Amino acid sequence: MLTRITVAGGGTLGSQIAYQTAFFGKQVIVYDINDDALNSAKNRLSALDQHYQQDMSATTAQLVATHDRLSLSSDPNVAFANRDLIIEAVPEVPEIKTNLYQQIAAISAPQTILASNSSTFLPSQFAADTGAPAQFANLHFANSIWKHNTAEIMGHSETSSQTIQQLTDFAREIHMVPIVLNKEQPGYVLNTMLTPFLEDAAYLWGNDIVDAPTVDRTWMIGTGAPEGPFGIIDKVGLRTFYSIEQQRVADKPAYQPMLTKIKQMIDQQLLGIETGHGFYTYPDPAYLKPNFLS
Amino acid sequence: MLTRITVAGGGTLGSQIAYQTAFFGKQVIVYDINDDALNSAKNRLSALDQHYQQDMSATTAQLVATHDRLSLSSDPNVAFANRDLIIEAVPEVPEIKTNLYQQIAAISAPQTILASNSSTFLPSQFAADTGAPAQFANLHFANSIWKHNTAEIMGHSETSSQTIQQLTDFAREIHMVPIVLNKEQPGYVLNTMLTPFLEDAAYLWGNDIVDAPTVDRTWMIGTGAPEGPFGIIDKVGLRTFYSIEQQRVADKPAYQPMLTKIKQMIDQQLLGIETGHGFYTYPDPAYLKPNFLS
Repeated sequence: MLTRITVAGGGTLGSQIAYQTAFFGKQVIVYDINDDALNSAKNRLSALDQHYQQDMSATTAQLVATHDRLSLSSDPNVAFANRDLIIEAVPEVPEIKTNLYQQIAAISAPQTILASNSSTFLPSQFAADTGAPAQFANLHFANSIWKHNTAEIMGHSETSSQTIQQLTDFAREIHMVPIVLNKEQPGYVLNTMLTPFLEDAAYLWGNDIVDAPTVDRTWMIGTGAPEGPFGIIDKVGLRTFYSIEQQRVADKPAYQPMLTKIKQMIDQQLLGIETGHGFYTYPDPAYLKPNFLS
Repeated sequence: MLTRITVAGGGTLGSQIAYQTAFFGKQVIVYDINDDALNSAKNRLSALDQHYQQDMSATTAQLVATHDRLSLSSDPNVAFANRDLIIEAVPEVPEIKTNLYQQIAAISAPQTILASNSSTFLPSQFAADTGAPAQFANLHFANSIWKHNTAEIMGHSETSSQTIQQLTDFAREIHMVPIVLNKEQPGYVLNTMLTPFLEDAAYLWGNDIVDAPTVDRTWMIGTGAPEGPFGIIDKVGLRTFYSIEQQRVADKPAYQPMLTKIKQMIDQQLLGIETGHGFYTYPDPAYLKPNFLS
């Protein structure tokens, strides 16, 4: 059983992974590059208390125990030595990942499993840098991991079946639903479907075929979903959606009006839930009101 | 207000449109080409009683009144003269539609609105055949219209705003939620999003990246939807999905394994809900069981 865990990178998702892992009984070190980064991580970890109280009915005793199992370090020799599992959640910049993996390779114990939370890169791109390709795979979490509790597990061709099994068991132990991919797939399972879906919805709005609430209403009635694509884009954040779409639709003229309109919204600080305004106004967005579907 | 309605074509969806329209107080003639077709339509209309009892809590008195407002005719002079609205729901064959529209043009009153339920054709393709393009638009219903109660309304460039308004009012009067498109869009709103979404899901399964229940589980957890894409494909029916996809992915090698596997399922009579077996077994498919998401 994997019990001594390090999460490398204490950003939004790294903090959530560390918190969830400690909440369910693991010893967790959060590694980041300097004291400033660690202080930000510390604040993020504290801010998660209220979410676990609200959404997971966590008791005060559970929160205290969670923080007791969490420690912070910017010392690679502390963070990477003698760990069962190191989860990498650093920025999506290949050089940063490569440098980190080589650093880990120099310090870590022979049995250490290394897992990347990368949304955009395949494990085969970095396997050689890790020095232990059989013990390397991606382990991908969604934002608000305590609520959206899938852990997508994706190896490369040299990942051992034992590594996949250990990551699967670990995911269950921290109350995630493991989604094991049989082969590499950019976007894993969820984003392979979700990203083009959001893009097609944005096309309909961008080209003035219908407005955004009409798109969401149609999807919600037609499929019974609790929210439509623009409700989801508000959660993802318009800046994140824009940066993904800039890459994806660069050569598709039909999608340029959508991109332009998203950019205009970003310029007006209509960023989604994070600013309280996006396609809807928060809290209490129109799509949750009783008359929205009629 | 549009009150004298004809539905041309008494197939699955034509019968549902006629029934829903009569249920909400309109006088409805179901037109079809001969007595055999009309007898089939009559059986379909009777079979709808139980759905309106179960899903709409319809009383016996309401069912009787609905059938009192429904009549059947294979005489174009009865079916097309002096009607406020003729809804075309005949097979998706251009020649059949063109012939029908020309027949209607020769008989119908000057104020008659003509609306096509076509899923695949744009109104601009047939506007000239109708003889009254300003009074012609598409009015598109989903299967099981009493439950999936959107009515997508799509004009062509010459459709009058009055026609769009009258169809919108009519949709509300028969308890549909009108979804008005500002311009022509193949697939309307729902299928513009739904069809590629189902296709991407089928790609993941077809290429053995994950199995079908895992795809659905991931989508259901990730978006809170009550069912995943393979649950939807079972409802749509594998034959319908196959015939749509044959056209769409003809030039896309990555989707051929999915097509081949769908064809194999069809050959084994795994057609979806209609045969009780598809990606799931009915009734009580696995995705509705409590442990499916854990």
